[in-house]
Amino acid sequence: MRKTQRLLMTGAAGTIGQQIREGLADYAKTVRLSDVADLGEPGAHEEIVTCDLTDADAVRETVKGCDAILHFGGISTENRADLIHPVNIDGTYHLYEAARKEGARRILFASSNHVIGFHSRETRLTASSPIRPDSNYGVSKAYGEALASMYWDKYGIETLILRIGSCFPEPKDRRMMATWMSSADMLRLIGVMLEVPRLGCPIVYGVSDNEESWWDNSETAYLGWKPRDSSARFAHLFADDPAQDPDDPEVIYQGGKFAKAGHFED
Amino acid sequence: MRKTQRLLMTGAAGTIGQQIREGLADYAKTVRLSDVADLGEPGAHEEIVTCDLTDADAVRETVKGCDAILHFGGISTENRADLIHPVNIDGTYHLYEAARKEGARRILFASSNHVIGFHSRETRLTASSPIRPDSNYGVSKAYGEALASMYWDKYGIETLILRIGSCFPEPKDRRMMATWMSSADMLRLIGVMLEVPRLGCPIVYGVSDNEESWWDNSETAYLGWKPRDSSARFAHLFADDPAQDPDDPEVIYQGGKFAKAGHFED
Amino acid sequence: MRKTQRLLMTGAAGTIGQQIREGLADYAKTVRLSDVADLGEPGAHEEIVTCDLTDADAVRETVKGCDAILHFGGISTENRADLIHPVNIDGTYHLYEAARKEGARRILFASSNHVIGFHSRETRLTASSPIRPDSNYGVSKAYGEALASMYWDKYGIETLILRIGSCFPEPKDRRMMATWMSSADMLRLIGVMLEVPRLGCPIVYGVSDNEESWWDNSETAYLGWKPRDSSARFAHLFADDPAQDPDDPEVIYQGGKFAKAGHFED
Amino acid sequence: MRKTQRLLMTGAAGTIGQQIREGLADYAKTVRLSDVADLGEPGAHEEIVTCDLTDADAVRETVKGCDAILHFGGISTENRADLIHPVNIDGTYHLYEAARKEGARRILFASSNHVIGFHSRETRLTASSPIRPDSNYGVSKAYGEALASMYWDKYGIETLILRIGSCFPEPKDRRMMATWMSSADMLRLIGVMLEVPRLGCPIVYGVSDNEESWWDNSETAYLGWKPRDSSARFAHLFADDPAQDPDDPEVIYQGGKFAKAGHFED
Amino acid sequence: MRKTQRLLMTGAAGTIGQQIREGLADYAKTVRLSDVADLGEPGAHEEIVTCDLTDADAVRETVKGCDAILHFGGISTENRADLIHPVNIDGTYHLYEAARKEGARRILFASSNHVIGFHSRETRLTASSPIRPDSNYGVSKAYGEALASMYWDKYGIETLILRIGSCFPEPKDRRMMATWMSSADMLRLIGVMLEVPRLGCPIVYGVSDNEESWWDNSETAYLGWKPRDSSARFAHLFADDPAQDPDDPEVIYQGGKFAKAGHFED
Amino acid sequence: MRKTQRLLMTGAAGTIGQQIREGLADYAKTVRLSDVADLGEPGAHEEIVTCDLTDADAVRETVKGCDAILHFGGISTENRADLIHPVNIDGTYHLYEAARKEGARRILFASSNHVIGFHSRETRLTASSPIRPDSNYGVSKAYGEALASMYWDKYGIETLILRIGSCFPEPKDRRMMATWMSSADMLRLIGVMLEVPRLGCPIVYGVSDNEESWWDNSETAYLGWKPRDSSARFAHLFADDPAQDPDDPEVIYQGGKFAKAGHFED
Repeated sequence: MRKTQRLLMTGAAGTIGQQIREGLADYAKTVRLSDVADLGEPGAHEEIVTCDLTDADAVRETVKGCDAILHFGGISTENRADLIHPVNIDGTYHLYEAARKEGARRILFASSNHVIGFHSRETRLTASSPIRPDSNYGVSKAYGEALASMYWDKYGIETLILRIGSCFPEPKDRRMMATWMSSADMLRLIGVMLEVPRLGCPIVYGVSDNEESWWDNSETAYLGWKPRDSSARFAHLFADDPAQDPDDPEVIYQGGKFAKAGHFED
Repeated sequence: MRKTQRLLMTGAAGTIGQQIREGLADYAKTVRLSDVADLGEPGAHEEIVTCDLTDADAVRETVKGCDAILHFGGISTENRADLIHPVNIDGTYHLYEAARKEGARRILFASSNHVIGFHSRETRLTASSPIRPDSNYGVSKAYGEALASMYWDKYGIETLILRIGSCFPEPKDRRMMATWMSSADMLRLIGVMLEVPRLGCPIVYGVSDNEESWWDNSETAYLGWKPRDSSARFAHLFADDPAQDPDDPEVIYQGGKFAKAGHFED
Repeated sequence: MRKTQRLLMTGAAGTIGQQIREGLADYAKTVRLSDVADLGEPGAHEEIVTCDLTDADAVRETVKGCDAILHFGGISTENRADLIHPVNIDGTYHLYEAARKEGARRILFASSNHVIGFHSRETRLTASSPIRPDSNYGVSKAYGEALASMYWDKYGIETLILRIGSCFPEPKDRRMMATWMSSADMLRLIGVMLEVPRLGCPIVYGVSDNEESWWDNSETAYLGWKPRDSSARFAHLFADDPAQDPDDPEVIYQGGKFAKAGHFED
Repeated sequence: MRKTQRLLMTGAAGTIGQQIREGLADYAKTVRLSDVADLGEPGAHEEIVTCDLTDADAVRETVKGCDAILHFGGISTENRADLIHPVNIDGTYHLYEAARKEGARRILFASSNHVIGFHSRETRLTASSPIRPDSNYGVSKAYGEALASMYWDKYGIETLILRIGSCFPEPKDRRMMATWMSSADMLRLIGVMLEVPRLGCPIVYGVSDNEESWWDNSETAYLGWKPRDSSARFAHLFADDPAQDPDDPEVIYQGGKFAKAGHFED
Repeated sequence: MRKTQRLLMTGAAGTIGQQIREGLADYAKTVRLSDVADLGEPGAHEEIVTCDLTDADAVRETVKGCDAILHFGGISTENRADLIHPVNIDGTYHLYEAARKEGARRILFASSNHVIGFHSRETRLTASSPIRPDSNYGVSKAYGEALASMYWDKYGIETLILRIGSCFPEPKDRRMMATWMSSADMLRLIGVMLEVPRLGCPIVYGVSDNEESWWDNSETAYLGWKPRDSSARFAHLFADDPAQDPDDPEVIYQGGKFAKAGHFED
Repeated sequence: MRKTQRLLMTGAAGTIGQQIREGLADYAKTVRLSDVADLGEPGAHEEIVTCDLTDADAVRETVKGCDAILHFGGISTENRADLIHPVNIDGTYHLYEAARKEGARRILFASSNHVIGFHSRETRLTASSPIRPDSNYGVSKAYGEALASMYWDKYGIETLILRIGSCFPEPKDRRMMATWMSSADMLRLIGVMLEVPRLGCPIVYGVSDNEESWWDNSETAYLGWKPRDSSARFAHLFADDPAQDPDDPEVIYQGGKFAKAGHFED
């Protein structure tokens, strides 16, 4: 695979960033990592940048010289809207403006299943399904998806909109048997996103080839990404859990705890 | 997998009941078997009940104390309506009423491909396809599906509506290369139905992973059931059959002989 | 319009039968009316038959000599299943068998919106939407629809499956502003059903051209029926009603009170 | 029609607010009007409030005591994101939070055709079509739609999401022959939104019954709104316009000038 | 409406050409009429050309100087393929090549319902329905539709693909009650096709607003064409016809006699 | 598998014919090969016929005595229409007429992805997707598909319409990673087409199980064909290619170079 010259990953200190950081070396000559948190020492092929997404100028500086961007930065769980908006909304806007001005043409936008979290588990979703966000967080990701769509239609900047399920080393609860995505599948998807001749602006559900499946990626099969891992090998972790109530909102809705929770207040 | 406390199987002496009876031990502490035909000696974990589905009180007694029900009971081939109705219609009603009153919350209803038997083979069916029953038998199963739907919406009783293809040890004719379901796949589906956190009221086509495929279960992939067997290994059985006429109603319609047959009269 | 030679209407003493009895004279040389209730004196073109639908022989005798049938007979509200089944299930079976044996080729089957009563009001339904019956009554009508489908596919008997909304002289409550069907629109539909060169076995929602509309008949526009009345002129009847709770099951579901009600017990 | 006790209209000094202000008297005992711009003298049934949407406390005070809200406030044309975000994003969030805390249960959210402006004119859109915003403005409205969806699913607050075409006294250019909405049709829709027993959270295209039609409201016909006006009577206004280039982005895309324009910079 | 400078109508001596010739004066300064048959004396605004569609050079000469083309020329009923191909296939190719070379940018291609004639009457068709031609004639029109699509995608030449039902002064048989198109509705459609800012390459069913309706033009409502006539006023013509057999292929299929007929041989 | 008595392959000297010629021995007692080019010496089970598709009598003679036909003959790349039409249009007509008159009942028609070549790569296609031909060649194949449909509906001749991607020993460029079909998968499909009890007239995309996938054959899964090869093992061939421009028409459209090319002129 042809290597990207310089690949930027925002939010590199986060849960996903930590899992995939090492693997990115395969895809780019230089990997630029940014976060507000500490990123440790740079590896041989790495550059480290401290960048607050709410600072438009800093974002532009961070983007400068990069061919492609993995935008994992931002708040990635439910919180107060006045904390989420500056980072996930204004910050994402700054990132796309920086890409437009600096000529970065290909972006992975880390969206979330919480954009569609109020669909019931029985509802099979595709890239065309209506959104039903389940939280302030989910609404902020819906903004990012809309923004990516506009930058594609208007400026030709390609985005892989990735509605990530649960990207952890292993599933943390019974629900994640359906939503789990391995970091290896994430890396393979990043490879595809960088290499495919035409990316466009597809919506992809970020999930491994689990047995329980809520999401159908067939509309975006042109990308050539087929997950190879499965949560099946973790089934034993939940074998002794008590049975769940099928009428519990946490069980009814795809968003799980996010859909069940009341309003977030500090 | 968590074991069900007491699992009832009606029609336990039938073709399918005989194939899966032994395997049910894996899923439940006690398996209660009922039929009007002889069921032999009970195994260590088994209870045996003689129960006529047309007797509402007997059905209620049979259901009492069971967490979940596999309802295979009833007439399972074409026959006179005045014989089918009391068992398949009134009897199924008795079963759902018993479940409602006795608190059984999860049911597998053995429906049939003959509910959709007048679709042509070229028509790919999903859980949402319109029914087109091909016989008195098929119409009685359509009643059962409607009843299951109502008990879900109104009383929260979950049913896996299973439109069984041909569940025999091996395919009996060329058509069953498309419709065959192994008993091992049936057992795995029962395991899923008992274990999945939320079952709802899905319509599932009961068929193995055969090469010729008329039915698409992707709408119910949230269940996590993937058949593992295939009829392919039986292809030699029909290799010397004479070619079939593509314009024969038995070949045109999914219901095969049921769709072709005239009215059943004694 | 060509007149039918002899048109049978079952359930002629019912709410709808009374409203349309007179108008049928335009469509048939002889109108045969049947019911178990008193039908008064026959008009010049009328024949009156007392017929219990649970009696197969009587039904056959009633059908003999008729070209077409309007099957309004049966129990038309929620009730105990042991009362509904003999009339709505066995009785409807008798009627179709009689039609098959006596050569009646065209039937209007009075189905009901209660076949789809557990869809929410926000769900727009077409002829292809899945059923979601809301009552024993609705399930019995689902049986009739399945039976009609089978007699069409197997024996070429055409049925207009009519999912009637609320056919009364005027709407009786706020919900009927959406579901009301005038008897004049019913009569025009009967004219179309008798005259159209090919009827097939369409599912039609029986509703006037009301402003609030839950059902879409465009799939069956080949019939050429366009309702001309509207409930709009009755809006004043409910102008002073207190506001309804949008979360009341009676308001959420299309089936209204039927969907809200618990199980029917005597 | 039952009158709402107190109806709030934000953005009351705007283009649409001015057209419909007088007509609102028919629907509510008290009409509370808010804006940052001058609203003149209050009428007999009116209350006037100066309220900056970026001030959460002021918004809450403004919403207090209102049954229903028409949210027309915000920036309604393309502009810099740092101007649009505080009003259209944070401001709309403040409004929904105020509604949640103060118990207002029904909202009209003035969204815009610019949420779907990058669809071509040949693409017929329904309430389920994917969004394709054409501007910072359009993206901010996509945020508002997502927020409304979340408040419905999570808190039961009903919103009519109205994707307004062009609500002016008359069409201003050839494109508006397709997108024009009369203020009378707007008022009728407000009446429907206030009176319908169950509103839910529908997406409605705000457009009169024009001959050229890009948008299909049939999915939301349960509301009972049928526009009665048409742009046809204004055809003469554009009869002498030179022919347009079908390959001009302004003509290709539904968003017209918004889709064609480059990035907004001050 | 802005007038086209020079509008060409091929096949001007045919059934439709005769009905609309006069009316075209409203749409173009000069109307050029071509046919191999006699066209009589030209009117004040008319030019008359004798042109054989099988002669590429003659076609190019005929097209020269025209802004827009109504292509009604060719064989318009079933016939031997060796007679149909040179005119309807090669001739149509010549026409599109002439348009490409001479700069004519907008074409009405007279296709036919016989492109979809093997769909049953119960099947509602839209612009996206699969073709099912019923005759050599229908297949030749399918070629023309494919050609028009290619010239749009490749060269930007816009075509209104018009699947004409039955354009006669009045319906000639019972089937035409569903398929009839008045010449006035045809003329209005031509006006729309010439005036609409962006035509694209839509498939439109050419039919008036008849009560019986097989075809749904809603996908192309962006054109702004609404038929105003109806066959209803001709119902008396067929009132005394004997009843038709619903199982007659002429009645089953939309193509009527074309679908029923065997192969055309001289 | 039962052997066909005599299987005709037209265009046997072409690219595909050469790859599969040997393998056909498994499916038929006698294989008749026809072409205008030299076919070398016949094998033990082969008959060789020189046949020009433009000669109706010669085609009929060639078809005589054959049970089934693989119609690969004709021009298989872009060319002048006056060269393509006689072979691909008239010639295909001759073939179907010969089949009708001589009683051959099952045909594989070699159509092409260039029938749908103007769809973008992001558009997932099924058998029901609208055609968008990209060339004179593609339009001629659209004619053949329409003809096959008519011969099925009218005369009961079954055709597998095969929209071939790129059937070469290995992919020749980056695009073929998505469109490549192995000759082994082609042969398996021919086996299925000859053996399946009812073929009907399905549209199948001829492509191996490649990672990048534009086409969805699930609608025709009743055939039982599952490709087993994949282009993945050829990925190294293009690893050092320079990155492609996603806005190049050759990259945007499925038809690749055909869609990009201007008009073919000699």
